Amino acid sequence: MRDVAVIGVGMIEFGELWEQSLRDMFTRAALAAVDDAGVDHIDSMYVGCMSSGMFVEQEHIASLLSDALGMGPIPAVRVESACASGGLALRSAFIEVASGMSDIVLAAGVEKMTDVSGEEATHALAAAGDREYEAFHGVTFPGLYAMIARAHMERYGTTAEQLAAVAVKNHANGALNPMAQFRRPITKETVLQSIMIADPLRMFDCSPVSDGAAAAIVCPLDMAKDLARKPPVRIAGVGAATDALALYRRKDLTRLPAVARSAEAALKMAGRTTADVNLAEVHDCFTISEICVIEEIGFVERGKGGEAAESGWTALDGKLPVNTSGGLKAKGHPVGATGLAQVHELVQQLRGDAGKRQVRNARVGLAQNMGGSGGSSVVHVLEAW
Amino acid sequence: MRDVAVIGVGMIEFGELWEQSLRDMFTRAALAAVDDAGVDHIDSMYVGCMSSGMFVEQEHIASLLSDALGMGPIPAVRVESACASGGLALRSAFIEVASGMSDIVLAAGVEKMTDVSGEEATHALAAAGDREYEAFHGVTFPGLYAMIARAHMERYGTTAEQLAAVAVKNHANGALNPMAQFRRPITKETVLQSIMIADPLRMFDCSPVSDGAAAAIVCPLDMAKDLARKPPVRIAGVGAATDALALYRRKDLTRLPAVARSAEAALKMAGRTTADVNLAEVHDCFTISEICVIEEIGFVERGKGGEAAESGWTALDGKLPVNTSGGLKAKGHPVGATGLAQVHELVQQLRGDAGKRQVRNARVGLAQNMGGSGGSSVVHVLEAW
Repeated sequence: MRDVAVIGVGMIEFGELWEQSLRDMFTRAALAAVDDAGVDHIDSMYVGCMSSGMFVEQEHIASLLSDALGMGPIPAVRVESACASGGLALRSAFIEVASGMSDIVLAAGVEKMTDVSGEEATHALAAAGDREYEAFHGVTFPGLYAMIARAHMERYGTTAEQLAAVAVKNHANGALNPMAQFRRPITKETVLQSIMIADPLRMFDCSPVSDGAAAAIVCPLDMAKDLARKPPVRIAGVGAATDALALYRRKDLTRLPAVARSAEAALKMAGRTTADVNLAEVHDCFTISEICVIEEIGFVERGKGGEAAESGWTALDGKLPVNTSGGLKAKGHPVGATGLAQVHELVQQLRGDAGKRQVRNARVGLAQNMGGSGGSSVVHVLEAW
Repeated sequence: MRDVAVIGVGMIEFGELWEQSLRDMFTRAALAAVDDAGVDHIDSMYVGCMSSGMFVEQEHIASLLSDALGMGPIPAVRVESACASGGLALRSAFIEVASGMSDIVLAAGVEKMTDVSGEEATHALAAAGDREYEAFHGVTFPGLYAMIARAHMERYGTTAEQLAAVAVKNHANGALNPMAQFRRPITKETVLQSIMIADPLRMFDCSPVSDGAAAAIVCPLDMAKDLARKPPVRIAGVGAATDALALYRRKDLTRLPAVARSAEAALKMAGRTTADVNLAEVHDCFTISEICVIEEIGFVERGKGGEAAESGWTALDGKLPVNTSGGLKAKGHPVGATGLAQVHELVQQLRGDAGKRQVRNARVGLAQNMGGSGGSSVVHVLEAW
């Protein structure tokens, strides 16, 4: 397998983008990545998108978008794994370049979620869970993660204040990110006084419904040195894993085994341990998920994920900054785009281009992108080169 | 890149399978392929599916289905490119094995289309076209292909009788296929007297709405010799290409440039020409599409596709048998499954296991799978080994 590098990234400001269509958003993000890379063509592309069918009644979007981008005849494939679609699009691009099949490949993610009502969006998002065994009986995603949060509280004594600390940290980071949907710091009280969505999760424990797109250009590491306009970032490790979608099929509600497996595989491929990682973007679709994920990856001991946020260990100036971009919580969560937006942040950080969010001496970054309530997970380990 | 072989295939009988869910159908086809290959595990899987979201309100299906198959933790990715989803799932599996990332990979395709009304199915299928520029204005797929058929008639003198000859041939083949949805021969009169759907296309010019699933197991050619229970079939060439979805963006309605490009790329990789191909499965979602596709691949001269069916050139005992399985027309067209069902047929033929449909001395087969009205196309060249 050939070594692979990211040579360009691009994204658009996330938000409720009523004036931009799916193809507008994709094209802007993809062109930003092409421009950042300084390439004059791409050989192939992958687009991560969870549900363009249910959100905008359009499938076959990879062809649609390669045409919109003016790349018409190239192979273009949509990759879907709910909210992990973006990360898995990057994995597919990585494999295609590593194989020798193509040299310059675009991986993009996009989701247009605000063209439907809130109720319809909730219904579409529930398609990431097990429709027949969960959603048809009334459980949607806040409910699923509320069960996980409740189990975590019972088992480990995790508190509502610790959940709130995750939200406060990520909003503080998001306030420094010009691409974030929410750019205002919040206080613990804002979270704890916000309305209850699914006990114990309140409004500010939840990531928003967003529109957005993000993209990355990858190529063989050997070519990157000549080709890239900016310092290339090596994809040192890739790991993906799956689990049952339905929570009733899980042995332990506090565990996300797909996260552990995908992280272990990616770190092993990179020849790294968690101690080598300088910063991480992880899938905080709810505050509890950041807590569970950093435990599963092994950044902290089991049960200590809440404490990590509360003590400042995962803060921008902490021992391991987590979600310096603002995370899904503050940056926004256009589900198919999220995995690539994480990579966008890590590349900025590893290049030293993250401005006020810059982590000192950032050399190794980890991105963890999750589908549903842990039904799929994909991890990339990125290294400054 | 490592050489790659198909070592097992499986499919279920296509039809209106009201008693089987998406996961039932997938699991039966995947287990048949696993059994056919004689393997005791798989390392990774890809599932091609066009619109589980619009048809059964379920996304995130690769994880759902790896769990249903009992393969829970492995990486599992859904690939979507409308009706070319199955073929592109195989291409992804090919690339993953060729890269060295994984050894034994399942490529499957599935679609559950009959849980919704005919009107809703038409609406979902229209998501393969350009929703904003075509479907919202009332054009659905029979209308798009009717425009293509009319242009072909005007340009080349193609007749309704020639369109009918494609249907008659494919139903004759389907009558010999125990997996086909329709297993009765029809006459030219049946086609020409059937109701008009979108002038000049009649009911019997159209493939049906179907439920079904199909699967293949691929591995490195080197391993195949030891691993496979039956003679392996080498994937000698793979090609994929895209085009604008909307017909108004095409220069010439009688042309499908993505088909020509994908076939050219696959034949080039295989080191073959069209003259080497002994049989082909091509995307006959409508009778006119088989005609256009065999012209684009270069099996016949431009404008001679209709004559090829009428003269018996593409018949089971003709010079180049096309759609020996019955094609989408008679075998059925569960859109995401179609690309793998084509491969199922070619593998049976190249092994000499096709029974009454067996083509003599079948050594090289070509499968062409198309998305929408030519917005995407993927071609595989398979060789007996």
